[in-house]
Amino acid sequence: MTESTAASLLVVSAHAGDFVWRAGGAIAAAVLRGERATVVCLSYGERGESASQWLAGKDLDEIKQIRRGEAEAAAAALGADIEFLDLGDYPLVESPEAVAKLVDVFRRVQPTVVLTHPLADPYNGDHPAAARMALQARVLAQAIGVANSDGSFPSKEEIIGAPPVFFFEPHQPEQSDFKPNVLLDITEAFPKKRAAMECLPAQKHMWTYYTDLAIRRGVQVKRNAGPNLGLPHETMGEAYVRYYPQVTGELA
Amino acid sequence: MTESTAASLLVVSAHAGDFVWRAGGAIAAAVLRGERATVVCLSYGERGESASQWLAGKDLDEIKQIRRGEAEAAAAALGADIEFLDLGDYPLVESPEAVAKLVDVFRRVQPTVVLTHPLADPYNGDHPAAARMALQARVLAQAIGVANSDGSFPSKEEIIGAPPVFFFEPHQPEQSDFKPNVLLDITEAFPKKRAAMECLPAQKHMWTYYTDLAIRRGVQVKRNAGPNLGLPHETMGEAYVRYYPQVTGELA
Amino acid sequence: MTESTAASLLVVSAHAGDFVWRAGGAIAAAVLRGERATVVCLSYGERGESASQWLAGKDLDEIKQIRRGEAEAAAAALGADIEFLDLGDYPLVESPEAVAKLVDVFRRVQPTVVLTHPLADPYNGDHPAAARMALQARVLAQAIGVANSDGSFPSKEEIIGAPPVFFFEPHQPEQSDFKPNVLLDITEAFPKKRAAMECLPAQKHMWTYYTDLAIRRGVQVKRNAGPNLGLPHETMGEAYVRYYPQVTGELA
Amino acid sequence: MTESTAASLLVVSAHAGDFVWRAGGAIAAAVLRGERATVVCLSYGERGESASQWLAGKDLDEIKQIRRGEAEAAAAALGADIEFLDLGDYPLVESPEAVAKLVDVFRRVQPTVVLTHPLADPYNGDHPAAARMALQARVLAQAIGVANSDGSFPSKEEIIGAPPVFFFEPHQPEQSDFKPNVLLDITEAFPKKRAAMECLPAQKHMWTYYTDLAIRRGVQVKRNAGPNLGLPHETMGEAYVRYYPQVTGELA
Amino acid sequence: MTESTAASLLVVSAHAGDFVWRAGGAIAAAVLRGERATVVCLSYGERGESASQWLAGKDLDEIKQIRRGEAEAAAAALGADIEFLDLGDYPLVESPEAVAKLVDVFRRVQPTVVLTHPLADPYNGDHPAAARMALQARVLAQAIGVANSDGSFPSKEEIIGAPPVFFFEPHQPEQSDFKPNVLLDITEAFPKKRAAMECLPAQKHMWTYYTDLAIRRGVQVKRNAGPNLGLPHETMGEAYVRYYPQVTGELA
Amino acid sequence: MTESTAASLLVVSAHAGDFVWRAGGAIAAAVLRGERATVVCLSYGERGESASQWLAGKDLDEIKQIRRGEAEAAAAALGADIEFLDLGDYPLVESPEAVAKLVDVFRRVQPTVVLTHPLADPYNGDHPAAARMALQARVLAQAIGVANSDGSFPSKEEIIGAPPVFFFEPHQPEQSDFKPNVLLDITEAFPKKRAAMECLPAQKHMWTYYTDLAIRRGVQVKRNAGPNLGLPHETMGEAYVRYYPQVTGELA
Repeated sequence: MTESTAASLLVVSAHAGDFVWRAGGAIAAAVLRGERATVVCLSYGERGESASQWLAGKDLDEIKQIRRGEAEAAAAALGADIEFLDLGDYPLVESPEAVAKLVDVFRRVQPTVVLTHPLADPYNGDHPAAARMALQARVLAQAIGVANSDGSFPSKEEIIGAPPVFFFEPHQPEQSDFKPNVLLDITEAFPKKRAAMECLPAQKHMWTYYTDLAIRRGVQVKRNAGPNLGLPHETMGEAYVRYYPQVTGELA
Repeated sequence: MTESTAASLLVVSAHAGDFVWRAGGAIAAAVLRGERATVVCLSYGERGESASQWLAGKDLDEIKQIRRGEAEAAAAALGADIEFLDLGDYPLVESPEAVAKLVDVFRRVQPTVVLTHPLADPYNGDHPAAARMALQARVLAQAIGVANSDGSFPSKEEIIGAPPVFFFEPHQPEQSDFKPNVLLDITEAFPKKRAAMECLPAQKHMWTYYTDLAIRRGVQVKRNAGPNLGLPHETMGEAYVRYYPQVTGELA
Repeated sequence: MTESTAASLLVVSAHAGDFVWRAGGAIAAAVLRGERATVVCLSYGERGESASQWLAGKDLDEIKQIRRGEAEAAAAALGADIEFLDLGDYPLVESPEAVAKLVDVFRRVQPTVVLTHPLADPYNGDHPAAARMALQARVLAQAIGVANSDGSFPSKEEIIGAPPVFFFEPHQPEQSDFKPNVLLDITEAFPKKRAAMECLPAQKHMWTYYTDLAIRRGVQVKRNAGPNLGLPHETMGEAYVRYYPQVTGELA
Repeated sequence: MTESTAASLLVVSAHAGDFVWRAGGAIAAAVLRGERATVVCLSYGERGESASQWLAGKDLDEIKQIRRGEAEAAAAALGADIEFLDLGDYPLVESPEAVAKLVDVFRRVQPTVVLTHPLADPYNGDHPAAARMALQARVLAQAIGVANSDGSFPSKEEIIGAPPVFFFEPHQPEQSDFKPNVLLDITEAFPKKRAAMECLPAQKHMWTYYTDLAIRRGVQVKRNAGPNLGLPHETMGEAYVRYYPQVTGELA
Repeated sequence: MTESTAASLLVVSAHAGDFVWRAGGAIAAAVLRGERATVVCLSYGERGESASQWLAGKDLDEIKQIRRGEAEAAAAALGADIEFLDLGDYPLVESPEAVAKLVDVFRRVQPTVVLTHPLADPYNGDHPAAARMALQARVLAQAIGVANSDGSFPSKEEIIGAPPVFFFEPHQPEQSDFKPNVLLDITEAFPKKRAAMECLPAQKHMWTYYTDLAIRRGVQVKRNAGPNLGLPHETMGEAYVRYYPQVTGELA
Repeated sequence: MTESTAASLLVVSAHAGDFVWRAGGAIAAAVLRGERATVVCLSYGERGESASQWLAGKDLDEIKQIRRGEAEAAAAALGADIEFLDLGDYPLVESPEAVAKLVDVFRRVQPTVVLTHPLADPYNGDHPAAARMALQARVLAQAIGVANSDGSFPSKEEIIGAPPVFFFEPHQPEQSDFKPNVLLDITEAFPKKRAAMECLPAQKHMWTYYTDLAIRRGVQVKRNAGPNLGLPHETMGEAYVRYYPQVTGELA
């Protein structure tokens, strides 16, 4: 369908840990295929997702450093590049300036696939805010008349195409109107996802939780791929919502 | 994901002409790839979609013959096999017996992909009735405890897997809650679709209508695949709704 | 709100095993509170949910007996009464006669709470068929002008009120548009649910699957009840959709 | 489910009168049970809901005083505390600063139940704006890393839990996608609601309108609680949408 | 848009009383404009909506006669013709034969507007069943190849066009997903509607209930037509859902 | 329903060209009936919809001038007044100040009908931003307590009523959840729409695209207005979504 482009995965994550739990399998799988993967964290999750560190008496800068370090380690375990926009969390405030920074990222990374949060999450307003900014930046980055954040205009090569966008799974999927239309087999990539999870020691109980979820989504991978006559349950999965229609030359 | 199986496309069509207008491109594309395609028409559309022949004074049997002949010619133009269940139309009445006949078809054809009507159509109740029967038959055909219509039980090889189902486009898509999540590029296959349409001479004004629709869906193919900087508008498309989640090893 | 009535839970289950996996916790909890619980299985799941027995060469009657025995054992483990309408499965065919039998059950059991399947399930048409019949029977059983299935008319005492209806969780919740609005704490009842699951030996891999699901829903019980500061993860849950509005004297 | 906490109802109202018409029954019922109720009005409704006073030639400050006095009288009639954030109306502008003030309110009031407007209202954009800010503040107030508006950090006791949120009824419910899932019996509390309504003399025609609505919702209370064999129509009701799933130990 | 046809209103009512409460204003208004109105009652509501008569010891035939007499009186008060298909209620069973009788009605009446129940009603399955049959009959009646119920084929004049369909208001609108998109001013017609209601003496409490509803919908008529600066509340209304798109030469 | 007011159509367009492609028929039809039509363009579409001019090396001001000139010519071809708020595009940023300018427009134009973009468009965030501002301005303009942008207060005559709002068709309707409920016959007005389209020479391929769309919507005009027995396909149409309920004295 599209001319041959180097595959490039861009993951827009509201907080420093989100990409690990929800999209670690997809990221590791892309890297295993030899593709480039880039994670951009809009904040460190320093206020809203670091309760144990606050309770331990750390201050804001310390917490940001801890979270940054953990996220860098997790990205390394997955084989992904990572960068941080440090926009603040709880709330993550949307602004034209923040979107402009993301436009720069899109143009630099030239993503062929984009992953981000879904547009609804009654438990965490930062997640849909991140998604809205990622979607807006993706559209603006396509336009040759939209300047870069330094005021320069992009060349024809610097604007981006229309990469597909996939929303990764929120913590409470049904409450967030998350109805997966893509089930990704991450069986091979799972050990790397597990290793990345283990880079986040403060949330040890989540390691099991997201391993169980991968098993559960793996069952659905099998259910939707064929009959289920007592096969062993070793397939691991992640669930996604494709936002734009799939463009394809073959129904399958 | 699935073990290598010979690709086999099954199209369940309420009336004799539906598969041509709505899925001719997908059928021709499958045949062009060397796959097998089978169309099963639940009725001839003899009462509800043959107004000009009734006005011309034909009787029921004559009309059924005419419609059958046209559908066979169109299927031949696409390179597909075709069969007719002759269940009657307007209304197409759902029954366990009709579904059992479809179960036989599914087990014989062993489809790897299924196409049928969407589940809502305020203008034609036969279309959702066909879809409901196709979906029910697909599930029953998976079960080793469900007998064939002759009372025999299927072997482990005769039951089917879980082939993906795609709904093809209804005549008034928005009114039928049809929100495409797959846009199929049928540029190469289109001449065969056009030839098949021309096998239906009583609906000559539809030739243009569905050619224009293919252009329109082709524009969306391009819009969803990349930027649109004055490219020529020659891409042809068909729109589909994937009913079950896509199972994949790679987001793309 | 309602005059004091002896609490009576009625569970309408399409197949013999459904009530165990999906509602075993609610059933056991009711029994633990000293309430009566009645399960009515519309079929044994003999064709659609007994693949391993068909593969083992059993015939239809043998399979029905096996399934009946397992379901009786599971009901006993939960402390519930159980009855079987033997309407056949795959497909479970809806009919006025089948509904009339359910009307009798409703009038005999006088339920104060009703549990059944949700109205959508793309993977199993028997489940919504069971739900539609349960809902229809509940309304018909309220009407003094609707005869019992033996032709007699009910007295004023024999008709039922308007018991709340809860849909229990389908196997693939998001695909079945299942958005829970009630999260039930089944921590105390869970050992009985586990014991009931272990009465179904042919589906041993499901024991773990539904234990993991109870943990997952338990996490949501805690998330929706208060803050989550590193508490142990021992709460077990089941998810439900309340179909009619809750009637209450107090918002809580 | 939750440890024993003093019940505390918090009502977030866009304009000075909203809480009376839409939630007066729930407020009075809470007070009658001995609970604390607090109303916070984000604005006085001085521009958008005071047409008769503008026509009478009052100026902005006079109108704010009149509205404030009426709202204080109505709150007193219900037995509730009331406070005013004076954020301006038509439009009620969302901002991080306004949300921060609400965070303070949540932490001070420690609500066990929260009432606010629904998220859609095509007739009045201030209502969904109030709801979005209330929901955001409720989540931020839970986080120990989110500072109070004076820059201090909350103690572990000052952050809040996860109180349930109920949306009260908008003026045109169907147009606002308001599908009640809780029907509250306010029969006993209604005289106090009526007294509160009568504190708003400029909207005398609303007294009858909202009394009729209470009767109408009362009919639904009875319809959803049991049979309806010619009973007198004296039950009064209010309708609500519960936003998060109900957490419970018993289905009822 | 359409060639000049004599206006003809057809109302398809599941039970004998439904058309009065829900569409009496539209019927009376059409008659006041000099148009023809025809009501077809699919059943008498003899089982499901005649509790007081069953409690009074009447038998089935007596109840049907009473209900028929009341409905005839109400239709006369509105100025409408009425006929009865006596298909039975609770449940109203859908069948090709019942639909065929309705096809005859559509072809005889040649409606320019059709009113019926909405497609969802969790409290009464007969209402959506009536709607489904009315919608199916409307489509079949358009087809020249669909025979009349006596086996004869229609002439070109006997088939019908595509009259708009409006769903009238169910008893619990929000629970039935009833979101009105048409608000009908019935101020002038209301005295006739009230007179028709008073032909149904067994449901005296409904006279007030539906008068209050007309006032409530009248308030919405005014709200959606212009500003609301203390006008008297005398406008009466009925709410409808238009099922097919409005076809018009002018946006207004 | 409403007192006699001079008909006045107001079209709120995000970019300079939108009103031509999507609402040119409705505008021309209004002018042909002798009504006044006013277009307000919030931006020129200078960044996001002027790729060919950027590629040709024009600068921002030149592009704005070109776009303005084309839009003025197109408005003249339709017979409409046009004004420009020059708020900038890609992104079109929402602000209270921008809304206040629109409030002034609403009060000056006194619209009896309002056209704007729909509330969802995954391909262009400026479109829903324009719609949100138009809807907010319409409500604020109704309130006598909301000042004009110069600080003066409106008289009773200067505030507006509650004109109906229609959303015009987005480029990818199904993806934008656009389900038309009004189909407008623009057959007579189409030559003027075509002439207006031809004022936009840079988008010549769109002339055919939107002519084909008018044919397609014209087919639906006919389908929804009556039977379709081989009539010539010359009707031209535009599709709209009515946002507020239609208020009418007659169902038709």
